[in-house]
Amino acid sequence: MSVSLPVAVDAMGGDKAPAEIVAGAVRAAAELGVPVVLVGQPEVLADLDTGGLEVIPASEVIGMHDDPGQGVRRKKDSSLVRAAEAVRDGTACAMVSAGNTGATMASALLRMGRISGVQRPAIATPIPVPGTTPTILLDAGANAECQAAWLVQFAQMGSVFATERYGISAPRVGLLSIGEEDTKGTPLVKETHALLKDTPGLRFIGNVEGRDILTDEVDVVVTDGFTGNVALKTLEGGIKFIVNKVLEAMMSSDEAKDAAKVLLPALGPLADELEPDNTGGAMLLGVDGVCIISHGSSSATAVVNAVRVARDMVDAGLVDHLRSAIKA
Amino acid sequence: MSVSLPVAVDAMGGDKAPAEIVAGAVRAAAELGVPVVLVGQPEVLADLDTGGLEVIPASEVIGMHDDPGQGVRRKKDSSLVRAAEAVRDGTACAMVSAGNTGATMASALLRMGRISGVQRPAIATPIPVPGTTPTILLDAGANAECQAAWLVQFAQMGSVFATERYGISAPRVGLLSIGEEDTKGTPLVKETHALLKDTPGLRFIGNVEGRDILTDEVDVVVTDGFTGNVALKTLEGGIKFIVNKVLEAMMSSDEAKDAAKVLLPALGPLADELEPDNTGGAMLLGVDGVCIISHGSSSATAVVNAVRVARDMVDAGLVDHLRSAIKA
Repeated sequence: MSVSLPVAVDAMGGDKAPAEIVAGAVRAAAELGVPVVLVGQPEVLADLDTGGLEVIPASEVIGMHDDPGQGVRRKKDSSLVRAAEAVRDGTACAMVSAGNTGATMASALLRMGRISGVQRPAIATPIPVPGTTPTILLDAGANAECQAAWLVQFAQMGSVFATERYGISAPRVGLLSIGEEDTKGTPLVKETHALLKDTPGLRFIGNVEGRDILTDEVDVVVTDGFTGNVALKTLEGGIKFIVNKVLEAMMSSDEAKDAAKVLLPALGPLADELEPDNTGGAMLLGVDGVCIISHGSSSATAVVNAVRVARDMVDAGLVDHLRSAIKA
Repeated sequence: MSVSLPVAVDAMGGDKAPAEIVAGAVRAAAELGVPVVLVGQPEVLADLDTGGLEVIPASEVIGMHDDPGQGVRRKKDSSLVRAAEAVRDGTACAMVSAGNTGATMASALLRMGRISGVQRPAIATPIPVPGTTPTILLDAGANAECQAAWLVQFAQMGSVFATERYGISAPRVGLLSIGEEDTKGTPLVKETHALLKDTPGLRFIGNVEGRDILTDEVDVVVTDGFTGNVALKTLEGGIKFIVNKVLEAMMSSDEAKDAAKVLLPALGPLADELEPDNTGGAMLLGVDGVCIISHGSSSATAVVNAVRVARDMVDAGLVDHLRSAIKA
């Protein structure tokens, strides 16, 4: 797939759509020099400054709280479905959406199809670990119930993604459990552990625990989509809580405010690294195309970063690398 | 059970045992006026200042990494088994251990037995939420695999515990899932959701997500022991990471150190509330006696708080309240 093809941005998806999404797409095209095509309702986009970007018209929108399956089946002219079709048809090199996650997955899966041999696609979410490379958690929510063989493929795909996305040459893969011992965990974990030990081409380091995610001890954390989603949201909630409490303390008096100013040069970079808008979004691994799932509250900056990652992953030939890993 | 009975403290369990544990037991007796009995190897305790506390001799120790089942079966004269027997036999009103969690559970379960009708005991862990009452998470790791009926009992027991431990009159009970909708989650979650809706005497508020744990939106979060343990450790790891990063920033220069001093009055109480030693430990709910599971790295202060909570829960008649809730 040529990188001169545009990245398709779903202009209608996300809490701040369409204004912030369109602004991000325009910035991405200008700042990164990446061709971008907007997908959305022409009459809505006509009211915004689209910076001369091309538009793929789509008359419908799948809402943030619509049922994903129904949405994709019934709204065949929705921005999400049209974006996925653009990738399938070779008129876009990748898609980016901050909209309904389930519907994004369903659109990508139904229109692009799976990479041959992949049993289930998984959402790979890079979790920033300030000071080192992010930890990639997958599945972060695509499949609430999983089989051991799927988790093995998640490990393979996550490992390829860690290499292409963060340049980690032999990513350490850990299986999320409730103890490091092989004997700990659910039957699914034990079965997966046994399979991962015998999977060639993987650097499997054994079971890891929730507390290992934010460390530089592991690069890829594999789990089912239920546990992964709970872990991700628990971590996000916990970090947000502490950061807010620290900020409250810093605003609690004039003296505290002055002190906070002194600490900003040291704390600012930390806050930047933890900011979800800066990660470039999660990726749906296993579909036959590049699909970036940006978080619902994505700002224009989040869209710029998502487009950048989409372009990078197309340039890197991620989908072909995934194909090879699954075939092997 | 009379409160004049002593609380049995496993002197041999925990990363800092026996010195810190014994020091905590001595402080608890002195500061709280609660009678305390130490359980452990007499020759080891003879070398420490036990402040005149009575000792229940136990010649063996189940190590932090011993297999719980084997440990309890083979080491019948271990401090953990003897502590549980003291509660069973009415020579102690409660037990406290910072040792091997699995072995603590097994000792309590095998020696005290279950409350009649309870299918599985669960570990209830209070998660501090600075600014409001803690959120109680259960099961935090006793049962990696659960059935829906067990989760319903966890909800009932967690609700009673929230009332007796934190004075919450009608605790809001949430089921941990990956979306608020009834249709989200695993088959176990969906089945449990349906049962909880129809359970009398519970204030079930529906599904909650990981990000709700550190809020004042829910009092009791119910989940299986695998998910609960992952969530708990992920949260602990995340909070520890951020706190350490903030501390690093505060130590990064002389100016920053001075600024940090100004912020201490505002940040100190937050740090105190988040400190695991101050929560009083987790509780094994469903066994026929009060059993406090203190974290492995417990300091003397953690032991003081655990003894305080043990005494409070005996005074409150927690076990009888649990019995009534399960019978109802």
